[in-house]
Amino acid sequence: MADKAALQAEYDAWKAKGLALNMARGKPSSEQLDLSRPMLGLLGPESDLRSADGTDLRNYGVGAGIPEARELMATMLDDSPERVIVGGESSLNLMYDAIARLWTFGTLGGDPWGRLDHVKWICPVPGYDRHFAITELFGIEMVNVDLREGGPDMDAVEELAKDPQVKGIWCVPTYSNPTGRTYSDETVERLAALQAAPDFRIFWDNAYCVHHLYPAPQQSRVKDIAGACAAAGNPERALKFASTSKVTFPGAGISALAAGPETVTEITRRMNVQLIGHDKLNQMRHVMFLRDAGGIAEHMAKHAEIMRPKFELVECLLGEELADVDCSWTHPLGGYFVAFTAPAGTAGRIVQLAKDAGVTLTAAGAPFPYGKDPDDATIRLAPSLPPLEELEQALRVFCCCVKLAAAE
Amino acid sequence: MADKAALQAEYDAWKAKGLALNMARGKPSSEQLDLSRPMLGLLGPESDLRSADGTDLRNYGVGAGIPEARELMATMLDDSPERVIVGGESSLNLMYDAIARLWTFGTLGGDPWGRLDHVKWICPVPGYDRHFAITELFGIEMVNVDLREGGPDMDAVEELAKDPQVKGIWCVPTYSNPTGRTYSDETVERLAALQAAPDFRIFWDNAYCVHHLYPAPQQSRVKDIAGACAAAGNPERALKFASTSKVTFPGAGISALAAGPETVTEITRRMNVQLIGHDKLNQMRHVMFLRDAGGIAEHMAKHAEIMRPKFELVECLLGEELADVDCSWTHPLGGYFVAFTAPAGTAGRIVQLAKDAGVTLTAAGAPFPYGKDPDDATIRLAPSLPPLEELEQALRVFCCCVKLAAAE
Repeated sequence: MADKAALQAEYDAWKAKGLALNMARGKPSSEQLDLSRPMLGLLGPESDLRSADGTDLRNYGVGAGIPEARELMATMLDDSPERVIVGGESSLNLMYDAIARLWTFGTLGGDPWGRLDHVKWICPVPGYDRHFAITELFGIEMVNVDLREGGPDMDAVEELAKDPQVKGIWCVPTYSNPTGRTYSDETVERLAALQAAPDFRIFWDNAYCVHHLYPAPQQSRVKDIAGACAAAGNPERALKFASTSKVTFPGAGISALAAGPETVTEITRRMNVQLIGHDKLNQMRHVMFLRDAGGIAEHMAKHAEIMRPKFELVECLLGEELADVDCSWTHPLGGYFVAFTAPAGTAGRIVQLAKDAGVTLTAAGAPFPYGKDPDDATIRLAPSLPPLEELEQALRVFCCCVKLAAAE
Repeated sequence: MADKAALQAEYDAWKAKGLALNMARGKPSSEQLDLSRPMLGLLGPESDLRSADGTDLRNYGVGAGIPEARELMATMLDDSPERVIVGGESSLNLMYDAIARLWTFGTLGGDPWGRLDHVKWICPVPGYDRHFAITELFGIEMVNVDLREGGPDMDAVEELAKDPQVKGIWCVPTYSNPTGRTYSDETVERLAALQAAPDFRIFWDNAYCVHHLYPAPQQSRVKDIAGACAAAGNPERALKFASTSKVTFPGAGISALAAGPETVTEITRRMNVQLIGHDKLNQMRHVMFLRDAGGIAEHMAKHAEIMRPKFELVECLLGEELADVDCSWTHPLGGYFVAFTAPAGTAGRIVQLAKDAGVTLTAAGAPFPYGKDPDDATIRLAPSLPPLEELEQALRVFCCCVKLAAAE
């Protein structure tokens, strides 16, 4: 370990540069967003604005999405188009709405969760802060379970799920936020077969399902949870979500959910009260631009060209700078994040040191329910947004802060 | 009154034509939708995709909408941009969400409505079926109040609002759906000053605020409910909604709400858990296309050119055909509908007769809570969608059905 005075001097030198760098959120870079610019030219004033079945894309209707868009999103969701509902620009909104409906109306004859004395939820950690914010807002008690190499600690999940107050679990099965870990087949099968309440629901947020950094065969597809649930006799257990937020434009993409046959019918009936239909013009833009699973894969390969050097820089720089520190980090093959494990008790300090030196990181604790990391050790690194040169600077500052905090 | 046999013969002749006409929903015609085609060319692959404050419109963020869009929608909502939140493609969704939040979380420290024994809602009738569907889904008891020339029967509203279980009222203040009636200043002031529960909320759906058939001065602006509520000491009482659904593209427009200062803060905080932000590219398209209040008025004048002959045809044909029948209808100066009052007990029969002759009307009863018209007399006519020639046919069939049902 380097001498603390030398580290402090290095840190002060970084601080003196007056940097303003950001590794906080999983935002695509401007270069990635440019990849989808051509999509904006696909529907113009002279375009035929009808779907294949003749629907006027400019007028009311088609709550579940135009058939072409359901087909496209079915490829991301590993499901059949008739079980797919296309949403608006945000899959997070679809998840929020799904919980809100379960809360107020219940599902398939079960009690509304809001009428129960207490509702609990399994949260694999580290996980996605915005998932936890939803369950927190509804007053659902969140219970941590370790997220390991092939998914959550399933022994713990199986034990927890026996409690009828436990109504669901958050899952990011592919390149999980923030670890980048992907669920194994065994995890999927054990989730599908859980002994749990009849209205226990798996929220399967496959946000990074096509977001591979390397070409096949390294990019293996996660086993489909819906098929596994059906095979285990629980056909209504999984709600699957995906979006084009990190395929085309975050906030101006399209989202979708898939669910069991009875659940899709129930959701459709309730959604038809909520709104008449989502933006079909934007659905058609996406269909024309991405075409099908092959088109998505081609497009994502271009994203990978931009993302790969950034992830490799993280891997390389951390290895180079932090060899002597008692820390570790994940080595994702896709997704948007690296989870860094600092010496216990130093994560908050590192984030603060970095901030003071002009590098914004995700808040320490954010990947845990209630923002509380029991070990104060996990930091989410989000290398996508900054250009490579800025990323390198930000990472060097980060490493300096890790070493300084460890020395303190 | 014509001889019944002659009416039957006329009806049978219509039926033999095998028509397939639709006057059921308030959909703009294809010709109207063409007016907004140029909007689709405003953002292309080469465009600068930033808002004036530098935000990348293609990336995450800006939950309340870009400043330009808040400013534009503030003109429709008669409010200041900082009290405006821009939504997605559906103002109905904004209303649903607002009720869902009140139901689950309550507002400004009040109990969540879902925890109360019973919640009631004032429904001016005839009104909008999709409003009633929302309150019905939440199990809120709907209480009818007559909608008269200048708004709801305010004596009845004042009496009902004293009941603390009564938590709100649906209002379509301008060219109300389906009567086309507009609220008077007195109605607005009495609504603002109601003695009611602290969390009583006026849902002010100004869906037709700029949808005039005739140029000024006939088009008078409804008095602003927010200003009236503030003046009456109830600054958080009104939630105002509007959208560009019938300005640009239904289902691909933008929506917005405005509310009191504390309510906007509360909604923003909760919405930030629900989603990261709505489609900013579509917001910018609308800003570029509509520009400001003047731009909206110019654009709506083009809609009026298309709509006016249709409304005048309704007025003219009904007057010509139904002079001898005990019926009446409204004479709107804007909006999308005419409310027709048939002889009591015949509305359902008329709609069925029309359907059998190939003319789809809005279901009888639809403009009432639970689909129940106590007099079975009101029929909503929606003349916007069919071209003029088809509309004339549809109206003649309708008139024939009215006469036949009256004779039966």
